[in-house]
Amino acid sequence: VKFRGCIVLEFNKVIPNELQNKVNEIVEYLNSNVLVKGVKVREEAGKIIEFKVRDNKIVFYTEAGRQVRIHNAALRIKNYFLSNISPKYRLGIRGLRIENGIIELDGQYTVSLKLPFIKSIEVKEGRTIILLEDISESEIKKPYIDRLLKLLHEKELRTKWGGKAEHWELLRQSKIKFKEPKFTEDPNKILEEIGWIKRFSVGQWFYTPPFTYLLNMLKYFFIEEVVKPLGFQEAMFPKMYPLEVGLKTGHLKGTINSMIFASFPRSYDISIYEELIDYMYVTDTAPPEELQKYVKPPTHFLCFAQCEPFYQFFSKEVLDDKNLPIKMYDHSGPSFRWEAGGLHGVERVIEFHRVEVVWLGKPEQVVEIRNQLLERYEYFMDKVLDLEWRWAWVTPWYYEQAGIVEEEKRELDINQPGTIDFEAWLPYRGPREDKKNWLEIGNISIHGTKFTEPFKIKHNKGETLWTGCSGFGTERWTITFLAQHGFNPENWPEKPRKYIEENPFPIPVRGVTYPKTEKGRKLLEEIIRYFKK
Amino acid sequence: VKFRGCIVLEFNKVIPNELQNKVNEIVEYLNSNVLVKGVKVREEAGKIIEFKVRDNKIVFYTEAGRQVRIHNAALRIKNYFLSNISPKYRLGIRGLRIENGIIELDGQYTVSLKLPFIKSIEVKEGRTIILLEDISESEIKKPYIDRLLKLLHEKELRTKWGGKAEHWELLRQSKIKFKEPKFTEDPNKILEEIGWIKRFSVGQWFYTPPFTYLLNMLKYFFIEEVVKPLGFQEAMFPKMYPLEVGLKTGHLKGTINSMIFASFPRSYDISIYEELIDYMYVTDTAPPEELQKYVKPPTHFLCFAQCEPFYQFFSKEVLDDKNLPIKMYDHSGPSFRWEAGGLHGVERVIEFHRVEVVWLGKPEQVVEIRNQLLERYEYFMDKVLDLEWRWAWVTPWYYEQAGIVEEEKRELDINQPGTIDFEAWLPYRGPREDKKNWLEIGNISIHGTKFTEPFKIKHNKGETLWTGCSGFGTERWTITFLAQHGFNPENWPEKPRKYIEENPFPIPVRGVTYPKTEKGRKLLEEIIRYFKK
Repeated sequence: VKFRGCIVLEFNKVIPNELQNKVNEIVEYLNSNVLVKGVKVREEAGKIIEFKVRDNKIVFYTEAGRQVRIHNAALRIKNYFLSNISPKYRLGIRGLRIENGIIELDGQYTVSLKLPFIKSIEVKEGRTIILLEDISESEIKKPYIDRLLKLLHEKELRTKWGGKAEHWELLRQSKIKFKEPKFTEDPNKILEEIGWIKRFSVGQWFYTPPFTYLLNMLKYFFIEEVVKPLGFQEAMFPKMYPLEVGLKTGHLKGTINSMIFASFPRSYDISIYEELIDYMYVTDTAPPEELQKYVKPPTHFLCFAQCEPFYQFFSKEVLDDKNLPIKMYDHSGPSFRWEAGGLHGVERVIEFHRVEVVWLGKPEQVVEIRNQLLERYEYFMDKVLDLEWRWAWVTPWYYEQAGIVEEEKRELDINQPGTIDFEAWLPYRGPREDKKNWLEIGNISIHGTKFTEPFKIKHNKGETLWTGCSGFGTERWTITFLAQHGFNPENWPEKPRKYIEENPFPIPVRGVTYPKTEKGRKLLEEIIRYFKK
Repeated sequence: VKFRGCIVLEFNKVIPNELQNKVNEIVEYLNSNVLVKGVKVREEAGKIIEFKVRDNKIVFYTEAGRQVRIHNAALRIKNYFLSNISPKYRLGIRGLRIENGIIELDGQYTVSLKLPFIKSIEVKEGRTIILLEDISESEIKKPYIDRLLKLLHEKELRTKWGGKAEHWELLRQSKIKFKEPKFTEDPNKILEEIGWIKRFSVGQWFYTPPFTYLLNMLKYFFIEEVVKPLGFQEAMFPKMYPLEVGLKTGHLKGTINSMIFASFPRSYDISIYEELIDYMYVTDTAPPEELQKYVKPPTHFLCFAQCEPFYQFFSKEVLDDKNLPIKMYDHSGPSFRWEAGGLHGVERVIEFHRVEVVWLGKPEQVVEIRNQLLERYEYFMDKVLDLEWRWAWVTPWYYEQAGIVEEEKRELDINQPGTIDFEAWLPYRGPREDKKNWLEIGNISIHGTKFTEPFKIKHNKGETLWTGCSGFGTERWTITFLAQHGFNPENWPEKPRKYIEENPFPIPVRGVTYPKTEKGRKLLEEIIRYFKK
């Protein structure tokens, strides 16, 4: 990256002759000291190529590099004049700006022309030339240019990386537990057929008492066998977040295409809605385009990763060793992900339920907690649910989700920031040998400083703080359990079988038209008989 | 209400002379039979005042009243011709419309000019004259005019009713339980001070483990002491609803000013967001106006009354005696109500948690269940929580919320559709004698057919089905409990005291900067000591 542009320093009066004669000397000093300070490679520093004195201004035509960028150079020049020149000549500095700024980059980039100070972009012959609007001092001080460069750098990496297959590296797997699967049907279809779930809207379902019972069972085991033994404490996180939170977590930049946004009404005064209400009343329709006029632009988004409020809670707080690590879990409401397609039963939905486990501490604490969780997870999958599972190290989800792409890692170190996916085999889909017959049922991550930095979560002695999280998607675990073990509790592992014995199973919803099909009604009676035994 | 207008009947050929000569006679028959059928009061029927035969059309200049409205008259005339005249003269009917229609009403109304077929409205001398556009046969068949009249009727009632104070009639109250209140502080303030809750955004809070523990305790007692003993079964209701559901429940018409709406992204293709993402990246801001351009108009709203999905679930289902009544409860996620002002701690918020209890059955079943619930509620308030409470019969919430205003009831019959509010005294606000020192903590309603009708929930033998619901706002019950009994479990009633003994109390969040104030930190240590005993 190369910068070029005119740094204009404006004084409160005409430059005295005495100073005019010295500017040459000053520029030499700036070039050999001020603009190269701290820089190892000459090309990464700033350099004044030419200057002009005009009335009360000095214009420095400057080139700059990656380390002393043009705006850094501008500030360094101003500060030098402020400390060393102004007092001597009783010259006040009235302004600083960069005119005709240019950023030159190797590589071809597309970037929004709507950005605050971009005038135009030319892409040719493998180079991108960004022409900047004039930049005022207050803009120079904002980190806009630095962020723009970071953005371009990441776009470059993303382009490189986007072409490659997703990273997926097997870490560990269960034994093959059944030569012949016990059950080969699609639990989603059965659940719908027997009326334990009913479609509510696209990607949303109504869970009747029997399916709620099963979800609660899975959740209960997870909380009792994995979460509580490790000392996690239940908290309740809000389920709608201001956009600012999404900026800090990075989701707005990385996964905006699958987030659902919330808008508040324009006014509390019901009379402003009269026309709309009349219209809805008479036509019995609610056209979204009309409604749009009565609501504010979206200021919030619905629960997406579920752990967001945890980071926001600790934002700007200072913690000490005595009170670290902090471990919480939340299961107080649903998450929402808009999926364009591929919805399937309750396996892939828009509204789903999750136990979100999240922790904060020093790096060694965060890693240790993750490792303890892995141990409990293995016990949970093997001994409690008796599943066929496997774990894989995957491209850290947040690198993608947060709109940041990291450069490829050379060697796998699972005690560094990253994500492990939990997958389970769904026999109904086909043989275990085929990757597409496995379902991601959860994951566990170490984030490093990914969240502690933007949320400014600090340690009182300046030590680094990390976070970690793990999401337990209740619907997916339940589907997996049913897909591998079926609907007859006699074939279930011990703990779930006991649970059924000890907790009375609810009465399913039945009616003349429900479940809908004759086949479904028969199947329901058959399954109910299993549960009654 | 009076209607006037030209009913135009168009045939597939010119009216034969023979028929032309008979129209007079036909009109007489229509006026004395067809248009007065079923009507007791002459003015409420239809009457053809004049007619004209022109080529292939007959134009009936008609006046009509409340019972045979102009569109009913039009259809009756058409049907008469279709059965009695067409065959005889081999005349096909090609069209039917109303031209220059006018609705005249006593009283002055405002109504949206954007309604489908309204041309203009004149209001003068206590009368409203609505001029209609020409109405085609397909529009005549839609219930637009009937709904418009209903709307106007309700507007009239609302105007009358709006001036009066809200209905509030004391039904029952607890004994005065303490001459001197045990505790007179505001639990909201203490909870914030000791860091058990922390503000997340306007009207939204983060609940740390100790407050979550208290909410869970209240919820636990409610479910165990009230809900489960009566055979309610847990279900899980979605927490975001399509607008159509809000049309049917009536909330969109009645409480649109406090609902939060949800919008989906315009596309799943992330590349369309690039400009916005670049902008957010560089400026570190997410302007709602910009975001608006990337999301669809709002198609959903966030959980408002919480029972909505229950009615949607049973929509168009047919039930029989064997499977009635149906009783469910849901506590799977938060509700959202946008409040313009008056937010206070967790007592009045935008995001809150509720156990929603809802049931469906024949009227006597619905009433009986409501009465059983009332009994358990009384036990719960008196024996479990030992609260000072009172119950009041209030203007049915849904009459307001559903955008419908019922005429005032003469005599109180609590076994008819209506709502009972539960209130509790908050000593920190002031003496119990002042109404404003009481908090509404819940309510219980019988809806009659308010929801079974629009959602078309049917009985196989055509019997009437009713619904009922009751909302347990966990935050408000918890605040009430703390406001009356304080933070020292030694002063609590027996069951909650036991709960604290049996369920380990969580460790509060502490840090160098948390709780924020010295006072809060001291108070926290004091309260923690109570809980450890």
